[in-house]
Amino acid sequence: MEREKIRKDITIKDVAKRAGVAISTVSRVLNGLDKVSPRTEKKVREAVEELGYVQNVLAVSMVTGQTKTVLMAVPDFTNDFNGSVIQGAEEYLKEQGYTMLICSTKDFGEEDFENLYRRFSKLAEGILVVPANPDRMDYGRWEKPLVLVDVYRPQEDYYTIEIDNAGGTFLLTEELIKNGHRKIALVGGLPDETASGQRVAGYLEALKAYGIPVDKRLMVPGVHFEDTGSRGMERLLDLPEEIRPTGVVAVNNLTCIGCMKALAGRGMRAGREISLAAFDDHLLARYSVPAVTVIERPTIEMGREGARVLLELLRGRRPEQKRLIMESRLLKRDSVKRL
Amino acid sequence: MEREKIRKDITIKDVAKRAGVAISTVSRVLNGLDKVSPRTEKKVREAVEELGYVQNVLAVSMVTGQTKTVLMAVPDFTNDFNGSVIQGAEEYLKEQGYTMLICSTKDFGEEDFENLYRRFSKLAEGILVVPANPDRMDYGRWEKPLVLVDVYRPQEDYYTIEIDNAGGTFLLTEELIKNGHRKIALVGGLPDETASGQRVAGYLEALKAYGIPVDKRLMVPGVHFEDTGSRGMERLLDLPEEIRPTGVVAVNNLTCIGCMKALAGRGMRAGREISLAAFDDHLLARYSVPAVTVIERPTIEMGREGARVLLELLRGRRPEQKRLIMESRLLKRDSVKRL
Repeated sequence: MEREKIRKDITIKDVAKRAGVAISTVSRVLNGLDKVSPRTEKKVREAVEELGYVQNVLAVSMVTGQTKTVLMAVPDFTNDFNGSVIQGAEEYLKEQGYTMLICSTKDFGEEDFENLYRRFSKLAEGILVVPANPDRMDYGRWEKPLVLVDVYRPQEDYYTIEIDNAGGTFLLTEELIKNGHRKIALVGGLPDETASGQRVAGYLEALKAYGIPVDKRLMVPGVHFEDTGSRGMERLLDLPEEIRPTGVVAVNNLTCIGCMKALAGRGMRAGREISLAAFDDHLLARYSVPAVTVIERPTIEMGREGARVLLELLRGRRPEQKRLIMESRLLKRDSVKRL
Repeated sequence: MEREKIRKDITIKDVAKRAGVAISTVSRVLNGLDKVSPRTEKKVREAVEELGYVQNVLAVSMVTGQTKTVLMAVPDFTNDFNGSVIQGAEEYLKEQGYTMLICSTKDFGEEDFENLYRRFSKLAEGILVVPANPDRMDYGRWEKPLVLVDVYRPQEDYYTIEIDNAGGTFLLTEELIKNGHRKIALVGGLPDETASGQRVAGYLEALKAYGIPVDKRLMVPGVHFEDTGSRGMERLLDLPEEIRPTGVVAVNNLTCIGCMKALAGRGMRAGREISLAAFDDHLLARYSVPAVTVIERPTIEMGREGARVLLELLRGRRPEQKRLIMESRLLKRDSVKRL
């Protein structure tokens, strides 16, 4: 195929020549550094339009001292949740003419954070972080604006985008109650950890709100991993019939998958022999038959909001609210049986 | 909690002072620009070590003209495959002291690519692309080194990291044959498209290799979406018993999910009433009971290899082989029944 292989960049020089002004004038117009006459500005803007000139990142940084670049640090890129947060943040930054640098931090130690900071402190104007759990980053080191998305422990000093954890498990538990369940179990959750503890609290609140006494035998605490789910479900299924729950709330996607595996191992399915509702949507919940009722987190929105708050900070504004708590949404499917 | 809130950067000035040399000497040592005496180099290296100095990206670029920054463009960040490729690439780049900029291109038109090019042509030394399908990017515009990961159509001009598509469906089909299946269907695949066509070819090759005649009624072509899978499986299940396949090969993750949904809709499961084997691993294949036999792509490796080839190009080397074809791996699970 014949085509012109290489087309040279249009530079600021070309724009200046076309507009009949000095290069410094073009720069002043494009970077908003100080005033030029409306007539000159119009000429420059027209030349930019006609030539299709786009400022490149390095050129902007040299003129304005701004790099229009933001660093995003996530534990890893293979996790669905992080992917969606990046998607939302990157879309918003792109719309605003910003560029995103990325870095994964899963295996980071103290020194790695130190290096991260040094390496990017000049290029990135601000940083957007999805903290790893446990969270070992010393955010205090970062002298630039910082926003945390989805935090595990209280981070009162920082701007954060969080999810309504308690509200989510409240809705799941309430959905089971509304369908006639009274023996409702909770699988996973650690009362001491903040995000996890909030999910436990939401379950307890819903029981209280509907006057259902708490039965400790129906609470199987544990870390948010698959194994907690499978062992928890096994234990619940082995309870004597008069105690055995008719419905189970799983605290996250992995514990939900564990519950489903344990059920399948006994030839059972969620929504048939026992009801199941879980925090976080995932492929298995979506496509199993019956599909599983879940709390969906607005993950892309969380990324967009994180980027929006960060740009507010970069523009010298101080959003009043430090914590932004996003709403959980219940997706009703077929895993909650009407009793 | 009391801690020192802000610690100032260690700059090149501090290093020069500690080593007792000029700033330009430190710069020459760190950026390998030209020779200094071994004694001076030692002093500089020691000062760097003692102070824990890390060069920042902008400083390096100003001195060397190198930015040590690479742009990675992917259709979107919510897809598992892209996430793993980014993970592998970013890990490798980090090891090599490079930084990654990212950009999603799913909704990009011609002009957006033009802008992408202009915006990053100064900052990024090279570009790593996971092409969208259909692929609308005019790579010829990009004057910098370029590597494509996972291509859909022949890209002979470029360095590419590909997967052995034909080898993958060959292995899936062979696995069914080795388990006594002779009536084997193929769901999805378009012979005209390169990657997809290769998957169709691998199925046909395996049948040929084992002397099994092709039965066109068992081939349900289509795009690689869920709907092709569910409608394909429905059609196959409705065939008269003497033709109906005992085993099905699905061309990718989405067609596999579609097949599984169609089976579930009839109260059937893969590995019981009918056998199933599919290209690409995914959560549903992994956690269903029975779990589904799949071809696993070395996605993280594909990202690492892409980054490795790109850095070779940036260092002025020309890898001999333009196309790097990675091996597919068969993960045997429980969805192929022994007949």
